[in-house]
Amino acid sequence: MKAILVVVGDEILLGQVVDTNASYLGQAFAASGLELVSKWTVRDREEEILEVLHLAMSKADLIVFSGGLGPTSDDLTKPLLTKALGGHLVRNQKVENAIKTWFEARGLEPGPMNLAQADLPDNCTLLNNPLGTAQGMLWLHHGVHVAALPGVPYEFKHIVDQELIPYLKTTGLLRPMVHHTLMVAGLVESSIARILKAWETKWRPEGIRLAYLPRPGLVRLRLSLYANECDESLDFVLAAIQGRVQLAAQEIKDLLEGYVYGENELSLEECIGLILKRKSQKIFFAESCTGGALTARLVRVAGASDYVFGGVVAYTNELKVNFLGVKEEVIIAQGAVSTEVVAAMAQGAALRYGTDYAVAISGIAGPSGGSVDKPVGLVCFGIQGPQGTYAYHRSLGAGRELVIERAVMTAMFLLWRVLIDQPVMDS
Amino acid sequence: MKAILVVVGDEILLGQVVDTNASYLGQAFAASGLELVSKWTVRDREEEILEVLHLAMSKADLIVFSGGLGPTSDDLTKPLLTKALGGHLVRNQKVENAIKTWFEARGLEPGPMNLAQADLPDNCTLLNNPLGTAQGMLWLHHGVHVAALPGVPYEFKHIVDQELIPYLKTTGLLRPMVHHTLMVAGLVESSIARILKAWETKWRPEGIRLAYLPRPGLVRLRLSLYANECDESLDFVLAAIQGRVQLAAQEIKDLLEGYVYGENELSLEECIGLILKRKSQKIFFAESCTGGALTARLVRVAGASDYVFGGVVAYTNELKVNFLGVKEEVIIAQGAVSTEVVAAMAQGAALRYGTDYAVAISGIAGPSGGSVDKPVGLVCFGIQGPQGTYAYHRSLGAGRELVIERAVMTAMFLLWRVLIDQPVMDS
Repeated sequence: MKAILVVVGDEILLGQVVDTNASYLGQAFAASGLELVSKWTVRDREEEILEVLHLAMSKADLIVFSGGLGPTSDDLTKPLLTKALGGHLVRNQKVENAIKTWFEARGLEPGPMNLAQADLPDNCTLLNNPLGTAQGMLWLHHGVHVAALPGVPYEFKHIVDQELIPYLKTTGLLRPMVHHTLMVAGLVESSIARILKAWETKWRPEGIRLAYLPRPGLVRLRLSLYANECDESLDFVLAAIQGRVQLAAQEIKDLLEGYVYGENELSLEECIGLILKRKSQKIFFAESCTGGALTARLVRVAGASDYVFGGVVAYTNELKVNFLGVKEEVIIAQGAVSTEVVAAMAQGAALRYGTDYAVAISGIAGPSGGSVDKPVGLVCFGIQGPQGTYAYHRSLGAGRELVIERAVMTAMFLLWRVLIDQPVMDS
Repeated sequence: MKAILVVVGDEILLGQVVDTNASYLGQAFAASGLELVSKWTVRDREEEILEVLHLAMSKADLIVFSGGLGPTSDDLTKPLLTKALGGHLVRNQKVENAIKTWFEARGLEPGPMNLAQADLPDNCTLLNNPLGTAQGMLWLHHGVHVAALPGVPYEFKHIVDQELIPYLKTTGLLRPMVHHTLMVAGLVESSIARILKAWETKWRPEGIRLAYLPRPGLVRLRLSLYANECDESLDFVLAAIQGRVQLAAQEIKDLLEGYVYGENELSLEECIGLILKRKSQKIFFAESCTGGALTARLVRVAGASDYVFGGVVAYTNELKVNFLGVKEEVIIAQGAVSTEVVAAMAQGAALRYGTDYAVAISGIAGPSGGSVDKPVGLVCFGIQGPQGTYAYHRSLGAGRELVIERAVMTAMFLLWRVLIDQPVMDS
């Protein structure tokens, strides 16, 4: 079943509101075997709304409108769709009473514009909205389903989950599909593509599609497979394609061993937290150029206090000596940004604060502070673990915020490899 | 000038990525007098990309494509647009060298797919992308401008700001306008709207539009005024409307005194940095529930080493005692989340590390750890400055990441008020 989303609202096009309904609907539909094939955002203008309605009617089996159902004069969706789909607005007594109750519960009196939200099309199915005063509507017109939902995100989501998708499932029009996502760190998109070339040749003819979804410092690999039309029962078909996708995913995991740290949206900080929690071990952070961003990333995970003992931002040499016991001679001889100093920082941190692991970062985030030997973007990482001390240096490009973000991601990747006893060994 | 944005990518329609380029472009265009009239999101399919290209050509003066410029096989935008707009791909030696340099700087070797990103249309203007390997492209075809930009948000933003909008300004096709943005912290949107009611009544008839652009913990107020068509010279017209906007902005600054901390996209962390730099003073951070996020926010600003002396993440009571000299009795008597403890943390930090200012945060970020007396979302702030110690408590709602983000923003707002000698006094 092909679906098109039409988002109505000047505020979206002016960038005053980030549209989160679209990604929510995309995910909910993908998980239900509905294909969202495109999304159009239009202004609060009659002719533009009608134009996309007609265009979408020729392209999709389902059109979902989001927004424009409020009580004010720029809310055009309801009267326009009602008329275009051959109906009339009629006062719905039950909904009118619900609106009165909704306002009374908040100690308010509904105005005529609020009550007019009970004027509803006489040719649609209502999609109940217990969270607000705008009802959802669903028409079936010349074989195309047209739904209109309020744009307020929690109302939109509620109606999608509780009303729209359950209804669509009863139609038998959804094509079953399975998807599975692998989380990859430490490799860029193009390197992954090179490694997976033979895999793609093997699995593409089977209908498995592979999407590269990059995030800063990560690539998510999404495998997906639609079921073909067949006579078998749906459960049987889903189990079969699930099996194929798992097999294909396992081959990727083998090909990218040491880089696939998890599955299905697990973040690297959650992955690290799970390992430390399982081992009942603790960690300490000693950050210079990242200024606390690594510690903050780990602490963002609920329950981090179980394994994050603490951290220091040793932004000056003085603090590297005082907090971490780094010898001043080493800093003078090698410079604060050196593998020797980060190794000493990590060792000192684990020793002084009594943790199993410690991670140290020192680098040149820029824009100033670089030299020929040590250019902007050079970042050193020290990791202390039960097996010893590891030190690395990496060139992370330019742009202060980017260097910091990449340093955080790189540190987490290197730490993860130490945690799983496969430390990265620089040649 | 009417513009249409076309976002290309299955991952957007599957909801795996929230599209932030659209709202960024909407804001940037609105600020430059360009009207973004609609936005279409399509899949990585040849026929769908071409169809929207043709449709958009008939409706807009400018079409901006976002995404689909990467090196992998599902990146179709470049070859498709090149062919559709009558050009050919030709290897660009300068860009090829830049790609090689980009990879070398990261200790990597570019593969043939990476180098193929230097195959560029022979009939377009290149929009330089120093942050990645995919160049932006701009065609002028039958009177319509067509731009193709990489979808990676920081690359997209850079090219919009540094290349596309400056180019469009040279065309003379933009309606002249002036805008001015005030940065407001410490007040929510609805409170601001209440205070500015009379202001709106006064200035709206003059054509000054006021947009509320919320960010976590901040509201940006954008005033804008279009020039009318007239016979005067452009410079004269712009100077005149600039004067009106300045006057209107000054009235807002007076009405919101103590809350407007800056103008034109200045961040709160930059504002704090500027004040500390001017005073040649230093600051130290002692964070508990925010885990380093406040220090990291300050350090993100270039030159932060001039005034950020360092910080500690004192996630445990032990570290609050050891790092900051907080008396254990106080922690036991009042609890770690208390105004007494954050005051002691801030005092201890400034004293021990010899800085002029110190900020301490301790709170319950959740989801667990709350109680009836101290529910999830309760965060305490201590600020030590030359004039004394200030302590606050705030209820910041629920949701771990949200509480942390709001705590960082609240701490910066309270610190700013201390820095300008107008400390917030809780009643």
